[in-house]
Amino acid sequence: MSAGEPVFNRPALEQLLGKRFFYAPAFSLYGGVAGLYDYGPPGCALQANVLDIWRKHFVLEEDMLEVDCSIMTPAEVLKTSGHVDRFSDWMCKDLKTGEIFRADHLVENVLEARLDGDKIARNAPVETKADKDEKKKKKAAKVTAVRLEDATVQTYKEILAQIDNYSGPQLGELMRTHQIKSPETGNDISEPVVFNLMFASSIGPTGQFPGFLRPETAQGQFLNFKRLLEFNNDRMPFASAQIGRSFRNEISPREGLLRVREFTMAEIEHYVDPAKKDHARFNEVANYKLNILPASVQLQGKTELLSISVGEAVEKKIIDNQTLGYFLVRIHMFLTKIGINPDRIRFRQHMANEMAHYACDCWDAEIHTSYGWKECVGCADRSAYDLTVHTNKTGEKLVVRERLPEPLVEEKLQLEINKKVFGPRFKKNAKAVEDHLAALEQCKQAHDSTGSFAVAVNGDSFDITKDLISSFEKVSITTHIREFTPNVIEPSFGIGRILYCLMEHVYWTRPEGEARGVLSFPPIVAPTKCLLVPLSTNEAFVPVLNQVSGMLRRSGVSSKVDDSGASIGRRYARNDELGTPFGITVDFQSVQDNTVTLRERDSTKQIRESVDVIVELLKDMCEGRSSWAEVSAKYPAFVSQEVAE
Amino acid sequence: MSAGEPVFNRPALEQLLGKRFFYAPAFSLYGGVAGLYDYGPPGCALQANVLDIWRKHFVLEEDMLEVDCSIMTPAEVLKTSGHVDRFSDWMCKDLKTGEIFRADHLVENVLEARLDGDKIARNAPVETKADKDEKKKKKAAKVTAVRLEDATVQTYKEILAQIDNYSGPQLGELMRTHQIKSPETGNDISEPVVFNLMFASSIGPTGQFPGFLRPETAQGQFLNFKRLLEFNNDRMPFASAQIGRSFRNEISPREGLLRVREFTMAEIEHYVDPAKKDHARFNEVANYKLNILPASVQLQGKTELLSISVGEAVEKKIIDNQTLGYFLVRIHMFLTKIGINPDRIRFRQHMANEMAHYACDCWDAEIHTSYGWKECVGCADRSAYDLTVHTNKTGEKLVVRERLPEPLVEEKLQLEINKKVFGPRFKKNAKAVEDHLAALEQCKQAHDSTGSFAVAVNGDSFDITKDLISSFEKVSITTHIREFTPNVIEPSFGIGRILYCLMEHVYWTRPEGEARGVLSFPPIVAPTKCLLVPLSTNEAFVPVLNQVSGMLRRSGVSSKVDDSGASIGRRYARNDELGTPFGITVDFQSVQDNTVTLRERDSTKQIRESVDVIVELLKDMCEGRSSWAEVSAKYPAFVSQEVAE
Repeated sequence: MSAGEPVFNRPALEQLLGKRFFYAPAFSLYGGVAGLYDYGPPGCALQANVLDIWRKHFVLEEDMLEVDCSIMTPAEVLKTSGHVDRFSDWMCKDLKTGEIFRADHLVENVLEARLDGDKIARNAPVETKADKDEKKKKKAAKVTAVRLEDATVQTYKEILAQIDNYSGPQLGELMRTHQIKSPETGNDISEPVVFNLMFASSIGPTGQFPGFLRPETAQGQFLNFKRLLEFNNDRMPFASAQIGRSFRNEISPREGLLRVREFTMAEIEHYVDPAKKDHARFNEVANYKLNILPASVQLQGKTELLSISVGEAVEKKIIDNQTLGYFLVRIHMFLTKIGINPDRIRFRQHMANEMAHYACDCWDAEIHTSYGWKECVGCADRSAYDLTVHTNKTGEKLVVRERLPEPLVEEKLQLEINKKVFGPRFKKNAKAVEDHLAALEQCKQAHDSTGSFAVAVNGDSFDITKDLISSFEKVSITTHIREFTPNVIEPSFGIGRILYCLMEHVYWTRPEGEARGVLSFPPIVAPTKCLLVPLSTNEAFVPVLNQVSGMLRRSGVSSKVDDSGASIGRRYARNDELGTPFGITVDFQSVQDNTVTLRERDSTKQIRESVDVIVELLKDMCEGRSSWAEVSAKYPAFVSQEVAE
Repeated sequence: MSAGEPVFNRPALEQLLGKRFFYAPAFSLYGGVAGLYDYGPPGCALQANVLDIWRKHFVLEEDMLEVDCSIMTPAEVLKTSGHVDRFSDWMCKDLKTGEIFRADHLVENVLEARLDGDKIARNAPVETKADKDEKKKKKAAKVTAVRLEDATVQTYKEILAQIDNYSGPQLGELMRTHQIKSPETGNDISEPVVFNLMFASSIGPTGQFPGFLRPETAQGQFLNFKRLLEFNNDRMPFASAQIGRSFRNEISPREGLLRVREFTMAEIEHYVDPAKKDHARFNEVANYKLNILPASVQLQGKTELLSISVGEAVEKKIIDNQTLGYFLVRIHMFLTKIGINPDRIRFRQHMANEMAHYACDCWDAEIHTSYGWKECVGCADRSAYDLTVHTNKTGEKLVVRERLPEPLVEEKLQLEINKKVFGPRFKKNAKAVEDHLAALEQCKQAHDSTGSFAVAVNGDSFDITKDLISSFEKVSITTHIREFTPNVIEPSFGIGRILYCLMEHVYWTRPEGEARGVLSFPPIVAPTKCLLVPLSTNEAFVPVLNQVSGMLRRSGVSSKVDDSGASIGRRYARNDELGTPFGITVDFQSVQDNTVTLRERDSTKQIRESVDVIVELLKDMCEGRSSWAEVSAKYPAFVSQEVAE
């Protein structure tokens, strides 16, 4: 991508995205609602293309079982899954105005503002204008040039490095210790209280059947585990996948598409035997290098990245197992395939307190944006948590029964007591003593050798004499079936966040003349692949235009005709903003010899070939089988274009 | 399609669909929730294929602007659109048990049961077993063999023919007149009361911002009208489209996927100049014949279909205009393309009372199923209703401004009164009299000829003498811009309903041996296109299998390998149930000469050709460019198959 201007200009990008209707605040005629957005035609096509690649990259490539489940979910399901009790953020109020803040965001904003003030006071460079504009929107704390103690700066930095790791009471404690007030009013702030992030409703006409909008697509997949396992002919490991809308009633949505109340997710639940977390295709990815940020580093208040092959990371137990490592690589491959800058991707491990209630380990794929590093894909090890809680609640066993390759033979002690003597002698302790005996290998030895021994049960000692025991033998028990609850590795993609990051990464402006925005989407994700422009509105061009557009449609290459009267340059400028990678111009020569020029968006270079060749080249480039670099190396550059009559 | 058995066996189809996990009741581990379903892998793939065809048939073919809007909607928006007040059904209660019924369903069920009882009493044939099973599920009224008066039978039939046309009070009246009680208990029933069908929630942390889940995807499109018009370079007519989830809190969901609480819709909003409802491509469809059932026929208590070309129907004003007619044909083409039986499609016009509050005309594409005729696509003329109410509420003009081809010159009367005389003479009536004068062409004539005349305003007569008027002239007013609110033609598709109807239409059982179910999906919609079966688990087949599966993947033909140990016959039977149209068998000859056999599902006929030829044929058939009839006519049938070693 071209260097563009040195400073990323977010307002200019946002203006472009709004003008070309990639997305816009929903319900803006009614004043809008924070955290709800509508996608216009180019945003909608971009999303469809990214989801199509996602489906091919994950579902088809790995033979996953895709499902499409209900969004409306009975409260009982989400009570069992832990979401009713624990899917929440900490919220606090300005004690006078009632303004509501998300507690961790408030601490973060105020401390960042103080650090900025300190930098100004020390004459150190502060962040860019775009960042400041955003701060204003977030209603963050005012920046005042006040120099802080060196130790205070250090403390603030350490707090910020682990801001996601504090509980509500800890955040309250931080607010008191560091005198954090309501940023605009200076008023005192309430103690943080829990706010559940699910949208509540009720199902049916009685109003007595509570439900929530799902906060993730995962539960629908877990509840269908038995059907899916059967559909997969009982083979393990396997994965289900789902693309769909989820809902979170955020306390303070912010940062555009990065924190919203309604969003499209793509989630995979990969079910694996907890005893075999190796992955069959791990060797294909073992040398793939990732930039990672383990929890241990963050807990030291540091954020330095470690570049390491996933093979080495798994070997050193930095990443727990092969399956987790395999998916981190597949996630990285997907993100770079759709156009995310690989230098701006890192994998950050969650710290204990920030982990979702169902996870035992979690790595986020974070993408760097003008807002900082943002979580876009979570890759959690949910262990057996969900299948276990649903099994316990419903009594329906969500387990795998696996025929053992050879029967398992175990020696077990079998005890038969002399009930007539045992009961009367030990009375209420009889059961406890019996259980204790059965479990004790030593008792058997003592029994066999001395015939009598003593045991301690619940703090009391009991003499076990020979007359109490009828038989005490070792027997062999043979098992043919192993039953286990699979562990779940869950790569979970926030599609809107990824789209926003992508749009930041591919945005630049042409330096020539007045700044002109360009979105350099890779051809495979671009909303429209090709612009068709007749040189002018002359009727003579129509047959060739129709021919080309028909051939492109049959080849599955989406195109748009722009036969407006605007100059070719203006028509191309509009399509730079829409991120259309290619343009075909039909001119008078086209009418005579059926050749057309093909222009590439980023280089603005052109070639001229027959319609047949151009359509074939476009098809290959738009399906990712070749690139403009290859095409322009092979075909001569075309320079002199006719001008409109 | 084969004749199969004479009577459609719904329980057998349902069992198949459940066993192969096309769909299943959601949350069944928790006892399930009526009206909520999950789609398993084949159902999910079928839906994706149908939506893909929908997108190509409508969005791409007609250059529609696709959007993806918020589901969560502020209450104020739906208050304006009329949904808060009028998007409701009539509900009544068993006065003792509190059981809740949808009022029209209750009347329908009870009267149908009485008619059935009458038939039994007259020894006439009643409906099939499958229907009865369904009745039981619906908890419909018990059928008792009681003969009715002939006149009563006639009355009941007339009521049922227009059951959708009654208001709540009318339904209450019918219940009293016809002694309708709670079917299971015989208790009295309450008067019907209104029940709003939207799921309510609240947005944000304060709990003071009410919202609803959208009951249709249309409002999001209307609210973006200005952005869409601008995106379309202000050209008219144009259409937006949206595929997405909508929600209706049905009183009594029933009939499987046909009446659910959460569903995927695909909706088109076609914006058209109310003065130009002709359609540019109408001539392409004018001779297309449709089976229609106009409102006038239904109001006579009849249901006979009229087969008529859409050109004639529009000419005779049975269908209001060309654009509506054009879309009815496009809907019919879409339904038959995905495999709906054209003999089981009719277009039924809504009667006045059943029309949604926003519609001024509506035709439903109804599909015939074992449950009777079911609405699957609505095609409503919403006139300017929605854009007008949102304009009035928000003050944001949702209009089109069109430069007139030539300026419009209108003669208008311009009146200037002599205020000094006029006001004092007419006092509080002055304004009304002035307004009245300005509008009256005759006043001008009277003024010019006699100089004095009398007018009647609000029942009083006023003498207008010359001194009252300063000037009264005709002037020319020139307009360059015409401003109008577009009308909206809305084809709206219930995808789940269409999928269910499709599954009924393509289901049959092979007569040979024990009954084996087959789903004869057309190749373009089939969840999986091709089954790959090695003759046995012999390792020798693996290279050819991998070759074929790789070539199919690159050709975009989805395939599944079944290398289980089961017999080839059993593997094909399983895939008959999944509706997989083709099967490739790899045998020992394949390993030697790279030929494979291709089997077609419905005929079970085979051909044997090289892998290259077979892949090419599959690609053409699965993309709808050729058919098995063509292929089997061209290539020799293959009969003798090797058997497994």
